[in-house]
Amino acid sequence: MKVELVNTGTELLLGDTINTNAAWIGQRLAALGIQVSRQTIVPDGAVIRTAISEAAQRADVVLVSGGLGPTNDDLTRESTAELLGLGMELNAEVMQHLNDYFSKRGKPVSLATQRQAMVPHGTVVMPNLFGTAPGLYFPAELSASQGWNAHIFLLPGPPRELKPMVESQVEPRLRTWLPDGMSRRVLYLKVTGVGESDIVEAVEKQLEAIPGLDLGYCIRNGDVDVRLAGPQVAVDEAAVIVRAALGDCIVSEDRRIIEEVIVQMLSDRGEWLATAESCTGGTIANRITDVSGASRVLGHGWVTYANEAKHQHLGVPMELIEAHGAVSEEVARAMAEGALKHSGADYALSVTGIAGPSGGTPEKPVGTVWIGLAAKNGETWAQKKFSPGSRDRFKLLTSQAALDMLRRRMLGIQPR
Amino acid sequence: MKVELVNTGTELLLGDTINTNAAWIGQRLAALGIQVSRQTIVPDGAVIRTAISEAAQRADVVLVSGGLGPTNDDLTRESTAELLGLGMELNAEVMQHLNDYFSKRGKPVSLATQRQAMVPHGTVVMPNLFGTAPGLYFPAELSASQGWNAHIFLLPGPPRELKPMVESQVEPRLRTWLPDGMSRRVLYLKVTGVGESDIVEAVEKQLEAIPGLDLGYCIRNGDVDVRLAGPQVAVDEAAVIVRAALGDCIVSEDRRIIEEVIVQMLSDRGEWLATAESCTGGTIANRITDVSGASRVLGHGWVTYANEAKHQHLGVPMELIEAHGAVSEEVARAMAEGALKHSGADYALSVTGIAGPSGGTPEKPVGTVWIGLAAKNGETWAQKKFSPGSRDRFKLLTSQAALDMLRRRMLGIQPR
Repeated sequence: MKVELVNTGTELLLGDTINTNAAWIGQRLAALGIQVSRQTIVPDGAVIRTAISEAAQRADVVLVSGGLGPTNDDLTRESTAELLGLGMELNAEVMQHLNDYFSKRGKPVSLATQRQAMVPHGTVVMPNLFGTAPGLYFPAELSASQGWNAHIFLLPGPPRELKPMVESQVEPRLRTWLPDGMSRRVLYLKVTGVGESDIVEAVEKQLEAIPGLDLGYCIRNGDVDVRLAGPQVAVDEAAVIVRAALGDCIVSEDRRIIEEVIVQMLSDRGEWLATAESCTGGTIANRITDVSGASRVLGHGWVTYANEAKHQHLGVPMELIEAHGAVSEEVARAMAEGALKHSGADYALSVTGIAGPSGGTPEKPVGTVWIGLAAKNGETWAQKKFSPGSRDRFKLLTSQAALDMLRRRMLGIQPR
Repeated sequence: MKVELVNTGTELLLGDTINTNAAWIGQRLAALGIQVSRQTIVPDGAVIRTAISEAAQRADVVLVSGGLGPTNDDLTRESTAELLGLGMELNAEVMQHLNDYFSKRGKPVSLATQRQAMVPHGTVVMPNLFGTAPGLYFPAELSASQGWNAHIFLLPGPPRELKPMVESQVEPRLRTWLPDGMSRRVLYLKVTGVGESDIVEAVEKQLEAIPGLDLGYCIRNGDVDVRLAGPQVAVDEAAVIVRAALGDCIVSEDRRIIEEVIVQMLSDRGEWLATAESCTGGTIANRITDVSGASRVLGHGWVTYANEAKHQHLGVPMELIEAHGAVSEEVARAMAEGALKHSGADYALSVTGIAGPSGGTPEKPVGTVWIGLAAKNGETWAQKKFSPGSRDRFKLLTSQAALDMLRRRMLGIQPR
């Protein structure tokens, strides 16, 4: 099945908006086993007609987004109707929805908005639960007048309106047109601490031998998502292989990121985390507190950039810093133990390193970092890592390594 | 001048990669006064030939990215040469670059990589300073054989290779083809704390009257970039109007974000900041430490999610928390003053609020937050803000408001 996307939106071409809808739709269709065969972006206005007509000649399904709004350059609905020679008619249900939508907000329905209730003859209205403009589905027979055989879907541009409509209105129809119907499955194994090429080496040969398996890798925030898609039996077989090869590096099988996994684990166990960050400057605490429910697992955190802060708030002896340097195993351990003591938490993570771009030395180049992990019950762990590169990337990868150290500790597995 | 983009990359269609190159190029060209007229994305492989041929028939300039690498599905170079009937020849300079590149890394040049030194006859090599595949420029006369008149640029896909090549090789050529040559200017005024619709109301009427001015707004991380483009005289006139209307809400005129402005200001004055964050959980410290040089301005920070943490580390009296609640003006002030005292900094920012999704009450709904700012010299400020919405957005807007409070304090202007 050939599917094309057509987006209208001058803001996309100007670069003022990044086209996240297209990536999201690409992922949703990939999960169904469909690869989008082309994507075209054109400005607001009448050129949409040409773009739709070209796509409908090549594809079985055309997903059009944008240009359904009330302004003068929103021409997608009218252009498609013209293209297929369809008359417009007032749709009572849409009109009712518009009236309800605006009366709830205490506003009148403007004339420009009323235009959204005009619907091309023979099309199926797809209700918009999060906005005013309805989506429209043109079954393939409507394009027969042009000698084509393409299903055309018109979708609103705003992501919060588009996404639920794709899920509830487009995907169910696509599924019925797929040869293997509903039997296709997709599984994402999120792997941390292992590079893409090592993952490929570990599993690809075995996975390639599985009939019908569609395999993909996606690097996301320093982790690798291994995507297994295909018939249930193929996905199951592949998952067994990946789990056997990468076992304790798999963070989740439901797309949850590591901070979500950790907040859940701590919360389930009624345990607390404290953080003591130097070079990551609050990244770990910030990631943990991005997760709803973080207040049940993180009570105390420190950003101790200055040596006096490490000494004063965490009790790291100044002599220790002078003897070994702030970026050292000894100081990482002392920071973690100090944070544990001053917070009463069950675990404390510490980080001390050189984010760069300046501050490096031949012995401790930019990117060098020590991570400490103290626990109420048991010994303190410490690990040296090296993540040269930009400051952003250093903070991301270092916080990732620290969170993975904690995850492993809680699961009773060795650090990497 | 009509410019089209053609991207190849299966990962873009699968949604595994978001097309940030396209947005970036869109912005760069918009700054030159050129609006991209169409963008087409096709999978890796031979279909690139069709896409380039279609674009070259419509446009004056075609920017192609991706498919210059060493693997079997990297066919952009060969496909374009075939399309224009050009033979391939070995380019000695590219071969030298490949040899240098790999010998530096102690690796041999693979046969697959050597293919990158084969260059279509008559094209101009654009050196790749950050990778192996060179860019290629096909002057318009090369497409005359097909009856077209399009300049075609082939660019590498990875952003860190593509961006410098666009800046150093593509933009200078585009400028020479523009009617007004180098005279076009663009200015970005970054405005914080004011909504887009208020900005429009404040300045749009006056700006629309300026001949030749191209006006744009872009919302970015809670700020609004006002983009003024056009002839120098128009941009200057517009800037005077925007500065008069929005004056102290303008954070920068050089695209620097507020944390960069603040680190620079503190650093120039030799002053220090401390942070005491509850609901933002380290976001402010994290943003400050994203900026290189942060270690000269931020020494101490606290994440005091728990009430005991506020009491224990910042000296906030438990009775104060019990009397007024943790989310209150009194506690925000006490947190900021405690952080100032325990850090010895010149300024201390504090935040206490309800990020949600739970924890709200009728008097203090989710999104309620108090921000405090204590200073070594002078009174403590406190402000109530309300930012309902997602946790991410709450943290972003709250940290933004806190940073703006500090910016205003340092500039001696009233908080908003």
